[in-house]
Amino acid sequence: MHHCWFNGKITEANATQININDLGLMRGYGLFDYFRTYNQNPFQWDWYWERYERSAKLLKIPNPITKAEAHEVVLSLIKMHGEGEVAIRFLLTGGYTFDSVTSAKPNLMIISESLHFSSPKDYETGIKVMSYEYVRDLPTIKSIDYKHYMILQSELKANSAADVLFHKNGEISELSRSNVFIVNGNKLITPDKNILEGITR
Amino acid sequence: MHHCWFNGKITEANATQININDLGLMRGYGLFDYFRTYNQNPFQWDWYWERYERSAKLLKIPNPITKAEAHEVVLSLIKMHGEGEVAIRFLLTGGYTFDSVTSAKPNLMIISESLHFSSPKDYETGIKVMSYEYVRDLPTIKSIDYKHYMILQSELKANSAADVLFHKNGEISELSRSNVFIVNGNKLITPDKNILEGITR
Repeated sequence: MHHCWFNGKITEANATQININDLGLMRGYGLFDYFRTYNQNPFQWDWYWERYERSAKLLKIPNPITKAEAHEVVLSLIKMHGEGEVAIRFLLTGGYTFDSVTSAKPNLMIISESLHFSSPKDYETGIKVMSYEYVRDLPTIKSIDYKHYMILQSELKANSAADVLFHKNGEISELSRSNVFIVNGNKLITPDKNILEGITR
Repeated sequence: MHHCWFNGKITEANATQININDLGLMRGYGLFDYFRTYNQNPFQWDWYWERYERSAKLLKIPNPITKAEAHEVVLSLIKMHGEGEVAIRFLLTGGYTFDSVTSAKPNLMIISESLHFSSPKDYETGIKVMSYEYVRDLPTIKSIDYKHYMILQSELKANSAADVLFHKNGEISELSRSNVFIVNGNKLITPDKNILEGITR
């Protein structure tokens, strides 16, 4: 079973609710980060924490939790999940507002989720991706803004494509959830701008 | 007191909640529209409805309510609010998801809210706006994506600016919540691209 820590209280994830006047919902004003466990340990915790803090700073949402506190929450959620591996999502929003703009304090949710695996076949035969002319808005921030990717869902399905490859003005940037690498002889080439810098990059 | 109709049920707006696995919150995948009443009648109802439907279509979120049903909800909310004028917000999201991408049906909230008036002085002396190099992402859609405007809040306050004027490549497009008009002699000039077409435009 999955759980959600929300501003200090842990409840079942499916039953956790937020007021509709949250700026994440009303204004798309929020960020997230997401990592998985290996052997029930958070993967590259230090780096994910750094990126979460950097996104919050760039989006100007004050981070309401210390690294040590957050680490304890993450360990609790992993323990509550029980056996096996799990994914952890940090979701930080601008918080509750009463004029649809200003907020006194942000809302932070830390959620355990199921892992979604690619099929082993995909690793052998490769995946098909759809190209799409677009540069992510504020690409260095892991904001919640995935509207382009969501709009493309039916087209992705119709084309049996696994993901979407963003490019603009002849330059490839990234996929919706991955960085791009090209192997050219002995060289490993990867874009250096207009991307979210992935942790395993 | 304000109320919210949420997928068929009306509750007090302050107490209305949504599950945290809503795609509006998790993926910024949502749209809204917003109008006020005059003499307790919805202002330009037909045009607002048209724009709401257009946004939903462009964002590929199925609209779950008919025009007649929505009109009844709006009239109920105005009646429940009691005396005086009120604003109505339609908020349509991608709906609940269990894999952070797919959803069976959208979530629709129709909310009554307080009106926010500009001071009479502003109409006499004008307002100060801050210029900002930016074109709204998918500008013809009234999406919930206001992250740039939210990031600018502290700068707007520091500069005593009332709003932000978007421009790019030497072209003015719009303000965060208004269209732009320039009076030049007998001519009224207004941008025709990269904007949300305002109802009173």
